[in-house]
Amino acid sequence: MNAEIISVGTELLLGSTVDTNAAAMGVLLAECGVGCTHRQTVGDNLDRLTEALRLSLSRADVVVTIGGLGPTLDDLTRDGIALALDDPLVLDPDLEVSIREIFSARNLKWVESNARQAMRPSCAVALQNDFGTAPGLWCEKDGKIVIALPGPPREFNPMAQAVVRERLAARAGGGTIFSRVLRVCGLGESRVEELTQDLMDTSNPTLAPYAKTWEVHLRLTARAGSVEEAQTMLAPLEAAVRERLGWHVYGVDETELEDVVIKALISRGQTVAVAESCTGGLLGGRLTGTPGSSAAFVGGVIAYTEEVKMRELGVSAESISTHSTVSEEVAREMALGTRKKFGSDFALSVTGVAGPGEDAAGNPEGLVYIGLANGDKVEVSEQRLGRGRSSIRVRATQSALTLLWARLQGN
Amino acid sequence: MNAEIISVGTELLLGSTVDTNAAAMGVLLAECGVGCTHRQTVGDNLDRLTEALRLSLSRADVVVTIGGLGPTLDDLTRDGIALALDDPLVLDPDLEVSIREIFSARNLKWVESNARQAMRPSCAVALQNDFGTAPGLWCEKDGKIVIALPGPPREFNPMAQAVVRERLAARAGGGTIFSRVLRVCGLGESRVEELTQDLMDTSNPTLAPYAKTWEVHLRLTARAGSVEEAQTMLAPLEAAVRERLGWHVYGVDETELEDVVIKALISRGQTVAVAESCTGGLLGGRLTGTPGSSAAFVGGVIAYTEEVKMRELGVSAESISTHSTVSEEVAREMALGTRKKFGSDFALSVTGVAGPGEDAAGNPEGLVYIGLANGDKVEVSEQRLGRGRSSIRVRATQSALTLLWARLQGN
Repeated sequence: MNAEIISVGTELLLGSTVDTNAAAMGVLLAECGVGCTHRQTVGDNLDRLTEALRLSLSRADVVVTIGGLGPTLDDLTRDGIALALDDPLVLDPDLEVSIREIFSARNLKWVESNARQAMRPSCAVALQNDFGTAPGLWCEKDGKIVIALPGPPREFNPMAQAVVRERLAARAGGGTIFSRVLRVCGLGESRVEELTQDLMDTSNPTLAPYAKTWEVHLRLTARAGSVEEAQTMLAPLEAAVRERLGWHVYGVDETELEDVVIKALISRGQTVAVAESCTGGLLGGRLTGTPGSSAAFVGGVIAYTEEVKMRELGVSAESISTHSTVSEEVAREMALGTRKKFGSDFALSVTGVAGPGEDAAGNPEGLVYIGLANGDKVEVSEQRLGRGRSSIRVRATQSALTLLWARLQGN
Repeated sequence: MNAEIISVGTELLLGSTVDTNAAAMGVLLAECGVGCTHRQTVGDNLDRLTEALRLSLSRADVVVTIGGLGPTLDDLTRDGIALALDDPLVLDPDLEVSIREIFSARNLKWVESNARQAMRPSCAVALQNDFGTAPGLWCEKDGKIVIALPGPPREFNPMAQAVVRERLAARAGGGTIFSRVLRVCGLGESRVEELTQDLMDTSNPTLAPYAKTWEVHLRLTARAGSVEEAQTMLAPLEAAVRERLGWHVYGVDETELEDVVIKALISRGQTVAVAESCTGGLLGGRLTGTPGSSAAFVGGVIAYTEEVKMRELGVSAESISTHSTVSEEVAREMALGTRKKFGSDFALSVTGVAGPGEDAAGNPEGLVYIGLANGDKVEVSEQRLGRGRSSIRVRATQSALTLLWARLQGN
């Protein structure tokens, strides 16, 4: 079984959007055992889209389109598929009802153009979109399949990974390419590579490192007749990696560091609170991103000014004047004050210079102190997180979570 | 002048590499005034690459290939171009000398396959690669131009931005495509389109809407002889959009909603504090993402539990038991308590159900209340933010910033 991908959108051709969806679809096709030999990108132009569809249909069994399903006049994918498959567009009354329901549930004003999203080629079934109004389409005619998915990644990804994966895998039948990602914190990419070098010299299964934001992802991939067979091939490789990297392997696949931290706290019946200066709430934002986090996350203080640090967290004026707000001492007092205020088992504090440039006290951009209070004990980790405001802030949250994770694992 | 891009590499089709080069090339073509209507991606396969080249040459004046220029047997772009242009490959003795010099300068062992990189179609001139061994190629035959660039971004980008930009701009005759993005909050995509419909029916300049996270981007694009001329063409269009959409147009290009909110507060000498339940710090995280935000952002409380809402913000137990924590009343008390605690001019509060699923009190996933205290006045906005924990939380921060922005603009 062979597939092609057509990405639709003038913003892709102009380069203002990087086509991450097409890459994700490529991975998905491979994992389903479906070959992919061509990808095309066209703008919001009906003639060119229809021509691209006809070309792909002449070569492949399956064509996946991404984008162009919205309500506006430049959303032309439905029309292009109807022309390329020579199948009339019909108004699907059930779809119209469900789209109108979405609008009324969200108190949005109904605009007549939204009815366009209820149109589909007569051979198509709609694929439900839980994160937007435009449904996807699964069209089958004359032995060919055309799958149309919306372009916004938050809509595209859930549909691709659930209903499309399931239906494609069922059709493809045969072999598979199965991957598993081990997520590693607290080690750099070159150190991870050094520790696992000899495990990377195999062709099936394979092991490959990818540097992410202050963590490393190790992708284990096997080609096999079935997912079960692939999993059996991957098990000893995963065990070898885990033995070498220990607690640094914090999770698999989509698991985030905050997920395992919250889970570990819940399993121990413990809680955490936060005090954030340069991260301004991002650490609390990550910890509360995990469903069920209220069982372990109590709350926090965004202590952006010196006054809030003193009044709300009990940081002493002397410490600030002697050591400056970006200092080991202030991080320590912030963590202790937070633990006391919220009565939590742990408290994390972050104070640092996100930049641009050094702070008024001459501390350099990227210098960040992470405090961790545990009962009456407190420790502080000094971090140099490079340059760039956004990058420093994200790395600071990652460093804070890594510190707590290490301690929860007894390291 | 019209161009197409062909990206070459099996890793692109498998999705293990995201094609950032093609996006960068799209931007460059637009900036040089060269239209781009199609992009193709093929694997390391000579027949498919040659076929893709022939198709692009049949439609465009210029074809840019990216990738497949290395020394190994699966680097086939040179061969494909020679076939598609029907022009023989020749060994370029000067190229061979310079490639051998690179090897000896780096103390690398010469492997005979490297001589492949000294082959070129007879009509081609080599483009020097300062960051790798494979030269680029500029081929001209029968009125068509084929430009071949290497795939590694550290090699691709310098060549594209220097020699290719220079040669292309000279050929394109000085024209340019210039874009400006107007960022719109507080209106849905279909409503924006309804209000600007007639402005979208022009071919130069053009106006196109893109739905983003709870905001809409309107891209204004003009083709003209120079950037200045394009800006002159865009000015009346921008003025017309601004007149119709008013305060909803909050910024241009890369400006974020938090940037203009912070800027407006600073210019008025006012401050804001936040109280966050379901967003857990993300709103504070956004407001502090703007450099210089400490002049307007005081701090906040992440009030994740009922206890913290009562103790830190003065929310009454009665309100919680009568109305539940996700209610207009609790949002109101959170906002008032936050303003009082931090002594700020404004205070924003967020309480809602991020899910998955309804909360213990039966409030539905996506129901969020945003409170805004302004002096002693307080207002609450009820929002229905759809489904998906991550999406609801981001939309809630966007709704809160939109509410404050509207009031700062006197709406």
